[in-house]
Amino acid sequence: MTSKELFENIKKKKSFLCVGLDTDIAKIPRFLLDTTDPVFAFNKQIIDATNDLTIAYKPNLAFYESLGVNGWNSLEKTVNYIKYKYPDIFIIADAKRGDIGNTSAMYAKAFFDHMEFDAVTVAPYMGEDSVKPFMTYVDKWVILLALTSNKGAADFQYMTQDGERLFEKVIKTSKEWGTTDSLMYVVGATKAEMLGDIRKIIPEHFLLVPGVGAQGGSLREVAENGMNDQCGLLVNSSRGIIYAGDGEDFAAKARNSALEVQKEMEELLVARGLL
Amino acid sequence: MTSKELFENIKKKKSFLCVGLDTDIAKIPRFLLDTTDPVFAFNKQIIDATNDLTIAYKPNLAFYESLGVNGWNSLEKTVNYIKYKYPDIFIIADAKRGDIGNTSAMYAKAFFDHMEFDAVTVAPYMGEDSVKPFMTYVDKWVILLALTSNKGAADFQYMTQDGERLFEKVIKTSKEWGTTDSLMYVVGATKAEMLGDIRKIIPEHFLLVPGVGAQGGSLREVAENGMNDQCGLLVNSSRGIIYAGDGEDFAAKARNSALEVQKEMEELLVARGLL
Repeated sequence: MTSKELFENIKKKKSFLCVGLDTDIAKIPRFLLDTTDPVFAFNKQIIDATNDLTIAYKPNLAFYESLGVNGWNSLEKTVNYIKYKYPDIFIIADAKRGDIGNTSAMYAKAFFDHMEFDAVTVAPYMGEDSVKPFMTYVDKWVILLALTSNKGAADFQYMTQDGERLFEKVIKTSKEWGTTDSLMYVVGATKAEMLGDIRKIIPEHFLLVPGVGAQGGSLREVAENGMNDQCGLLVNSSRGIIYAGDGEDFAAKARNSALEVQKEMEELLVARGLL
Repeated sequence: MTSKELFENIKKKKSFLCVGLDTDIAKIPRFLLDTTDPVFAFNKQIIDATNDLTIAYKPNLAFYESLGVNGWNSLEKTVNYIKYKYPDIFIIADAKRGDIGNTSAMYAKAFFDHMEFDAVTVAPYMGEDSVKPFMTYVDKWVILLALTSNKGAADFQYMTQDGERLFEKVIKTSKEWGTTDSLMYVVGATKAEMLGDIRKIIPEHFLLVPGVGAQGGSLREVAENGMNDQCGLLVNSSRGIIYAGDGEDFAAKARNSALEVQKEMEELLVARGLL
């Protein structure tokens, strides 16, 4: 999928929502535990209830890996389900991978060949040769960690040399490795005030913004500081949507939560003159 | 396993070798492809042929994930096989994970609860709350990336503030998060000249050193600059050992390669007065 196609979908759905499928078997409604694959059963209902409001789904790999082979199986079924039932949806493997070149190539194979993800999140610490193998696939994306939403972001990401912070150096250096059709950045919603600084370096790139909702970030501040003339934002919400309810109507409640976010996004897109 | 137990094993086996199980289905002997689980069949023979010469095995997750559910299954079988047949072996999940706290906790569950790894490699970019969830398990280890063996290490790891490079800041900051019995660091063998600088910061911690062999690092230089009075080193070799042969005698050839490395390690341990 190209950035232009992403923007077309954003206009069509009046939304720039990404729903994080951080599906924790300890948190899903109890009645689903009687099904053969509770994690997939949960995801399927969430996806059916929210797909018209969302641009992207983002399964976080940790939640699937914690269940071993069964979890990996649920993940593959989830990706296939989205890909064939809702082919306009962008699917992100939130994996935060990154290793020496021949190993990163294996991860790329896992997410882009073996499964049909559109994008994978990658950690920048190991530099160019750990990131580039993910970029050899046509129409696939790297989403590189730049400024993360958690408290620990302050430990290393603000380190400064010659007035440039590490997250800025990561962005400035890596933007030469790909294009605005193959590279996005993770910028936490909890750091909205720094989005302006980041937009000075990469006015055109899409940003994946986690941290709205449970982590406390403000959607309005993110839009004010980070939106560009192709929207340029995918804002993720996980727990606030998928765990909105815990009874048999959990999917309807998830839809209601997604709809609230979509409405606010629609207003922000209108305010910016993009709808 | 404690650092003392690791050192006891090192003295007993006269070796500080870690064998990287980077098992690539495209590179294993062709005749194994007729078995029901070629990756496990390969690993099992490598392990049976080399376990008396090695302190640790280190499957790199990427190679297993690239095969999806089947690969994950081969990985679980490999870990169980080592754990129950050779219980004194230290098993490292080379996963380079790291995410916000509740997600890192899920990864920890995957590697320490669902599977019985002793240690997992973690990327430091997201800071303290992305690393600490891995440290809540008794007798389990975090092996944090500090200075990696690849070319891209130079992109960000040498960034300098007030005379301190990023990899040094990572070590200085993170050493307060755990103990010498719960925290090791990855330092590439290709950067042996910087091991001395690193030993000034952490004289006592174990280091996991990749990059000897195919990547060009020198074992002797690593020992000269990095060995301490508990050895303090686990030196990894992957391709140089596991792909030493490609016929029916591949395991015997792997053993020969491992034996060569072990002999050199024994000399280095003797030279240091540890045997």
